[in-house]
Amino acid sequence: MNENKTSNQMWGGRFASGPAAIMEAINASISFDKKLYAQDIRGSIAHSEMLAETGIISREDQEQIAHGLNTILSEIESGKFEFSAQLEDIHMNIEARLAELIGPAAGRLHTARSRNDQVAVDFRLWVKEELQRTDAALVALIEAFLAKAEAHAATVMPGFTHLQTAQPVTFGHHCMAYVEMFARDLSRVRDAIERMDESPLGAAALAGTGFPIDRHMTAKALGFREPSRNSIDSVSDRDFALEFMSLAAICATHLSRLAEEIVIWSTPQFGFIRLSDQFSTGSSIMPQKKNPDAAELVRAKTGRVNGHLIGLLTVMKGLPLAYSKDMQEDKEAVFDAAETLDLMVAAMTGMVSDMTINEQAMKKAAGSGYSTATDLADWLVREAGMPFREAHHVTGRAVALAEQKKVSLEKLSLEDLKAIDERITDAVFGVLSVNASVKSRASFGGTAPAEVRRQIRYWRSRLKRGARR
Amino acid sequence: MNENKTSNQMWGGRFASGPAAIMEAINASISFDKKLYAQDIRGSIAHSEMLAETGIISREDQEQIAHGLNTILSEIESGKFEFSAQLEDIHMNIEARLAELIGPAAGRLHTARSRNDQVAVDFRLWVKEELQRTDAALVALIEAFLAKAEAHAATVMPGFTHLQTAQPVTFGHHCMAYVEMFARDLSRVRDAIERMDESPLGAAALAGTGFPIDRHMTAKALGFREPSRNSIDSVSDRDFALEFMSLAAICATHLSRLAEEIVIWSTPQFGFIRLSDQFSTGSSIMPQKKNPDAAELVRAKTGRVNGHLIGLLTVMKGLPLAYSKDMQEDKEAVFDAAETLDLMVAAMTGMVSDMTINEQAMKKAAGSGYSTATDLADWLVREAGMPFREAHHVTGRAVALAEQKKVSLEKLSLEDLKAIDERITDAVFGVLSVNASVKSRASFGGTAPAEVRRQIRYWRSRLKRGARR
Amino acid sequence: MNENKTSNQMWGGRFASGPAAIMEAINASISFDKKLYAQDIRGSIAHSEMLAETGIISREDQEQIAHGLNTILSEIESGKFEFSAQLEDIHMNIEARLAELIGPAAGRLHTARSRNDQVAVDFRLWVKEELQRTDAALVALIEAFLAKAEAHAATVMPGFTHLQTAQPVTFGHHCMAYVEMFARDLSRVRDAIERMDESPLGAAALAGTGFPIDRHMTAKALGFREPSRNSIDSVSDRDFALEFMSLAAICATHLSRLAEEIVIWSTPQFGFIRLSDQFSTGSSIMPQKKNPDAAELVRAKTGRVNGHLIGLLTVMKGLPLAYSKDMQEDKEAVFDAAETLDLMVAAMTGMVSDMTINEQAMKKAAGSGYSTATDLADWLVREAGMPFREAHHVTGRAVALAEQKKVSLEKLSLEDLKAIDERITDAVFGVLSVNASVKSRASFGGTAPAEVRRQIRYWRSRLKRGARR
Amino acid sequence: MNENKTSNQMWGGRFASGPAAIMEAINASISFDKKLYAQDIRGSIAHSEMLAETGIISREDQEQIAHGLNTILSEIESGKFEFSAQLEDIHMNIEARLAELIGPAAGRLHTARSRNDQVAVDFRLWVKEELQRTDAALVALIEAFLAKAEAHAATVMPGFTHLQTAQPVTFGHHCMAYVEMFARDLSRVRDAIERMDESPLGAAALAGTGFPIDRHMTAKALGFREPSRNSIDSVSDRDFALEFMSLAAICATHLSRLAEEIVIWSTPQFGFIRLSDQFSTGSSIMPQKKNPDAAELVRAKTGRVNGHLIGLLTVMKGLPLAYSKDMQEDKEAVFDAAETLDLMVAAMTGMVSDMTINEQAMKKAAGSGYSTATDLADWLVREAGMPFREAHHVTGRAVALAEQKKVSLEKLSLEDLKAIDERITDAVFGVLSVNASVKSRASFGGTAPAEVRRQIRYWRSRLKRGARR
Repeated sequence: MNENKTSNQMWGGRFASGPAAIMEAINASISFDKKLYAQDIRGSIAHSEMLAETGIISREDQEQIAHGLNTILSEIESGKFEFSAQLEDIHMNIEARLAELIGPAAGRLHTARSRNDQVAVDFRLWVKEELQRTDAALVALIEAFLAKAEAHAATVMPGFTHLQTAQPVTFGHHCMAYVEMFARDLSRVRDAIERMDESPLGAAALAGTGFPIDRHMTAKALGFREPSRNSIDSVSDRDFALEFMSLAAICATHLSRLAEEIVIWSTPQFGFIRLSDQFSTGSSIMPQKKNPDAAELVRAKTGRVNGHLIGLLTVMKGLPLAYSKDMQEDKEAVFDAAETLDLMVAAMTGMVSDMTINEQAMKKAAGSGYSTATDLADWLVREAGMPFREAHHVTGRAVALAEQKKVSLEKLSLEDLKAIDERITDAVFGVLSVNASVKSRASFGGTAPAEVRRQIRYWRSRLKRGARR
Repeated sequence: MNENKTSNQMWGGRFASGPAAIMEAINASISFDKKLYAQDIRGSIAHSEMLAETGIISREDQEQIAHGLNTILSEIESGKFEFSAQLEDIHMNIEARLAELIGPAAGRLHTARSRNDQVAVDFRLWVKEELQRTDAALVALIEAFLAKAEAHAATVMPGFTHLQTAQPVTFGHHCMAYVEMFARDLSRVRDAIERMDESPLGAAALAGTGFPIDRHMTAKALGFREPSRNSIDSVSDRDFALEFMSLAAICATHLSRLAEEIVIWSTPQFGFIRLSDQFSTGSSIMPQKKNPDAAELVRAKTGRVNGHLIGLLTVMKGLPLAYSKDMQEDKEAVFDAAETLDLMVAAMTGMVSDMTINEQAMKKAAGSGYSTATDLADWLVREAGMPFREAHHVTGRAVALAEQKKVSLEKLSLEDLKAIDERITDAVFGVLSVNASVKSRASFGGTAPAEVRRQIRYWRSRLKRGARR
Repeated sequence: MNENKTSNQMWGGRFASGPAAIMEAINASISFDKKLYAQDIRGSIAHSEMLAETGIISREDQEQIAHGLNTILSEIESGKFEFSAQLEDIHMNIEARLAELIGPAAGRLHTARSRNDQVAVDFRLWVKEELQRTDAALVALIEAFLAKAEAHAATVMPGFTHLQTAQPVTFGHHCMAYVEMFARDLSRVRDAIERMDESPLGAAALAGTGFPIDRHMTAKALGFREPSRNSIDSVSDRDFALEFMSLAAICATHLSRLAEEIVIWSTPQFGFIRLSDQFSTGSSIMPQKKNPDAAELVRAKTGRVNGHLIGLLTVMKGLPLAYSKDMQEDKEAVFDAAETLDLMVAAMTGMVSDMTINEQAMKKAAGSGYSTATDLADWLVREAGMPFREAHHVTGRAVALAEQKKVSLEKLSLEDLKAIDERITDAVFGVLSVNASVKSRASFGGTAPAEVRRQIRYWRSRLKRGARR
Repeated sequence: MNENKTSNQMWGGRFASGPAAIMEAINASISFDKKLYAQDIRGSIAHSEMLAETGIISREDQEQIAHGLNTILSEIESGKFEFSAQLEDIHMNIEARLAELIGPAAGRLHTARSRNDQVAVDFRLWVKEELQRTDAALVALIEAFLAKAEAHAATVMPGFTHLQTAQPVTFGHHCMAYVEMFARDLSRVRDAIERMDESPLGAAALAGTGFPIDRHMTAKALGFREPSRNSIDSVSDRDFALEFMSLAAICATHLSRLAEEIVIWSTPQFGFIRLSDQFSTGSSIMPQKKNPDAAELVRAKTGRVNGHLIGLLTVMKGLPLAYSKDMQEDKEAVFDAAETLDLMVAAMTGMVSDMTINEQAMKKAAGSGYSTATDLADWLVREAGMPFREAHHVTGRAVALAEQKKVSLEKLSLEDLKAIDERITDAVFGVLSVNASVKSRASFGGTAPAEVRRQIRYWRSRLKRGARR
């Protein structure tokens, strides 16, 4: 095959200019890794400071380097910096500019450092900051739920199993279930921060270095607990990214469950809640229609987060140590997963804070479907001493009678109930209403309003303590 | 909670301006769906043409609409169009501009159409074009392999199982294995095009319309085989996107296997191939070092494609009909998967075309490890009439002897062999060399050079026919 | 470390007996690949028949082999065969038993064949049969929907977008949306069968063979269209498994959407359908409660199918040619995905066939939410010649008035309507009822009962033709 | 459609007996949840003990219950228990047998408990035990690596980037990279145990109970830190399963990297290691061939673990609270992921312990490819005071000269080197050998043998402490 013909014909369309264009398209990372500019500059300044402190470079050189890097930081933040795809990545872009600005001293910055540990430290700093952002966002979401739970500690709604009414609960109690979920997410975030809080800087290409560097000094300067303990692992590890995406996927799953409930509760058929105009869209033609767009998008974005997780797991599968170029695929996945999770949590915090609760609709639904049948059965066990299975049988007959008479259980007369079982007394009516049912379930973690309020206090105090667990 | 306090405090950082900023960030799609501008305009022109043809709007209005839309097309392609995030999506952006340009007649374009079928037709057109691009790209890749296979139909290399040398094959034969894989990918692409070749335009919101539209006319104008047969399915179906991503994932898997081979073959230990400078990167310090970056990135990007597939499957799981906002998550995944696949195929076509084969290294490796032991065993079965299991036993002894003498099988003397089994004759040496081995495997689809060349001819002719299968 | 100590202490618990137990546990496949016994025996008989026909083995040996294999088939099917984990896999189990039964002739069966092509042909035969089972199951499901669609071609229900009532449709039309989906699944199944219909038998270990075999003969005997064209690809290809799992994942996604609808429609709040007792479970205590367990399980099992797909894609990623042991992981995933899909389709066919439709509840919901507002707007465009956007504005005012008066649109008086816009006439009432709305949407693929019935006839005829498309 | 015809025709094949068979197949969980028998019995005994202690049931009833349950435990463990699919799950199977054994008192066991919290506590107990098993298995694997690292703290091998030789490292250092990875896995396991260490027992159906139960008592009896704080969350949470599978996926990824290295190192081309016969398979015909089957299977099983993770994430996506039947899909995925991970870790521990290192081959490869070029460059910076970029340039010329002379860097003469740059002195030879290179990289976490040994001591001491971190 004629090579020129190849170049002219084979790369039709997007890659008309041939191999060079393809290689630039597949190889250059500047389009996304420029997001790391601040971390890269911070890392370089810390590195140069340590090099000067240990006498590896001169203090004069260090001052020039630091000044140059700070200039570049300003240039980037003010939008004046010109990124070049030919310089491939953020590190080369900054390095080239530094050489322009300060001349030969720029060349000393790379002493006792390699692209491999530089990338590793930049990305790790970014992920750590994202984890801290997620921490704050989850705290805000939990607080939104605590506020709603407090306002509705005694608001009755149906507790569902199989999306069928099972037993009455309170809306506050339902909110507190989400507090538990998001608090577990928060605890995973804090564990992840602690686990990844090691500086890879100084691992160099993969083997460490012969220069008398002080890795504890750079670790401290960059806010890490300590330096990492193995230079090969330091440049080949992406656990911190995988762990972030794992916890993001679990958190997204929680958000999707809540989003699904919001979608279902917003239907005219349920009518339990009304989203604020901020988080729904209307129809120019049907003014009463409110589409729960934000909730649907939160639900959907779970797929995106899961996809990024499985994507990076697939990238890392079977990769020999230490560094392979495959690992460049880590960044876009993590950046997009992070941005997505931030957005999902913020949108949900907004929806929860702003939603209006239709207490009447909730209470009405809570009382339908003989939802207090278990209360009757439990009463029979507790007060009339029946074995559980017999109590179930008696209750079944009471429900059948109520269904036949088209009334709720509490509207059956005492005579009706006594006809079913002699041992039933007037006291039974104390458990047959939804309010009584809810109030009675005062076991630890149960739905009784007093218990819900106790758990709200517990979580308020625990959040204030800021404990990892 | 005080609402103002909420707005001021809760949305720290990215969403400082509160709910409106969050909703815009999560809801607006213009940042990615502007990619659909050409399809959107094409769809609208076809729709307006049909409306005029069926008398639903006047010819004058239609002409104004078409003129306005063509103006907008020019504006976008020349970079003059200003996209607005407040107008949310590409459809509203174009619609608003059309109203500016032609006034009230713009309002008639939306007759007998809804955003739902408009989005569906735009996206389907885009995916169909992408499938056609993939078709052409796969043909180019197959042709690159056919050229390499022809040049190396008789170049001997080790055939591996478990990455251990098993039997000699030819490099041409190995190339043809990839022709089979990518030809299956191509056939999946063509099936997918045929299956999705239906126009959803005219499904309206979800129920069809009472206007006397002609859906066959718009289908034909847009190059679809026919209109879709159910309006609810038309706006809720994303099978074409899922099918594209499924076939992309399988194709990416093929590419990743080849990429892995390129990485391994490029090591000094194997040394089978040398990538061109175009598709590898060097080291300023170790000029002989060539990193197979492009191959590593192709291998890695498989994760990205798989991630997008699982992401969209997750989005669509459990979604009630007809349209839910969740489905807006389809586009970015498909766009990125498409761009990724295009790039992977192009990079691999380039690497395959440009790589240099080290025939000596391949041949040497092919002869190591007693790779013709099966040839000896087969000869014993065929020529000496031994049962298979006995032939294996005899061969094992011959290999053990050769190993002990540190020679290859063909360097054993006839006496040596006869000492192991009397029935062995001089003729056996005709099968013990790697060239003889390879030549002998002339069964249909086998590695014999003549058979490899026959299959090359078959594929050349089939590609020319352009058959789906 | 002392080796004996190692063996005694390290493998505590499950693997107390040390390396041998671990290797057997990880390596042996007989526990799952015994499912392939019938395919293995069928493949071996076809192979021996060809060996005899081409004179590679004697007819007497072939007859003994065939007789022995048929004996083993009976032993397995009657439960008398004793599988041994030490013989690792189904092929070795059968081979060892054959040697017991017929002695040395058994050794000739393996002539011109290898474990690699034997596994490939067995598994391919199994997957092909599974695809044929899926074909039949999908036809049954489509027929169940066609029956329901016919019975309910004119049963009105709300058409949803965002799970909010949008426009009235018919339940028959909704059913036909699923016919479209499952018909696409069916067409993917048929494409997959056609694409994978090649026999790998004769590829031997990976290079083909020097024996004068006739691969066309075995391909035909086993019901394949033709032999595969490249021996390396033949033993390293698992596309047919990946393609089956891809189409299974898309089909499962369709089933999950339907399952979600069944769960939502079964709530007391919606009350659109009632599952039969066969496919739901009750409560001993709340006799009126029916949990849609089967629908929930169908919805959930989508995760399982998606998981198997991503699992096998991950296994195959980056695997060098030809055979690696990794590929042994293909079978359990495919077997379980197949069994799961069969079960999902069967359960859904049962649920759809047996469910009871609550026409009153559907119709009532269809009329709520001013669902015919678009019909009014379309009428204004069509009959009063208003531009679309103006018609929307007028309609919005009518809906607002109806909402204020707490009546449906069709209950507004002509005076009321004329007060909003003079151009409205008595004829408008012809489009404001849900029945009129539905009837009017007679565009191709629209929800009008007559159009629904036409599409039912189309699909009945197409299914009868049995066309791939 | 005629119902009988339906039953006879529609359920062909697997489900010939119609809906009942399908429902049993999809609904019954006994085939897999019987794995929970011990946890179920343990939970029930703890519950009954608490019921007696709080006076909810009599002590006599409790004693009967405990005796009956212990009898059942013996029956199951001795294989005498007959499981019934009609009794659906392990809980009903045990409950029914208890009623047979002790009569009416059995009915009292279910007081203040529901199937929902019973399932939750059983499964949580099982997962906690699995996490503890994984903890022990990881400690054994880490110890195997520490032993190998110690034996090979000074064994030189090539450090790879892009699978190309980059710089010499020691095999002990490479082993310690895996210690870091598996120690992170271990720390994730311990965090997960701590996070999920809450007893859901007493949450009842979803709302808690009105009986005066003591949840702290059952939590303590079952070894949990405390009872869970929200009854709805208690029955709807599956985070502990998702978190286990997330950490399993990351751990599997580590194992797959090691497995890939084992496969590559076992090729004749690399020849770095030799697996023991226990963990490889041979060929009857090529006695020298050793297939690394166990490593390939470990590599492949990563796909399986990832698949189960994504499967359960998909199941849980968008599931409304509290319990839905979908959640029954959690168990098989977790059971298989757990068994797979156990097997992978055990197999890898065995392979690592038993493998033989080919020190000659490693050292030879370490010295190839001018792997000490960076050492030369660093020496020029350090000793001759050159800026980094200039040092690189000089080194490039030295490598080019060595390549031209076909010698290694250390074989260049001082004159040769001085001709390139005057500042080079005799002292440079102190860094050009692989041993000198390795020894010099003594920065914290570097590859110098002394540093490797220091890190081995650190990890030995930390493992002994048993700290979470």
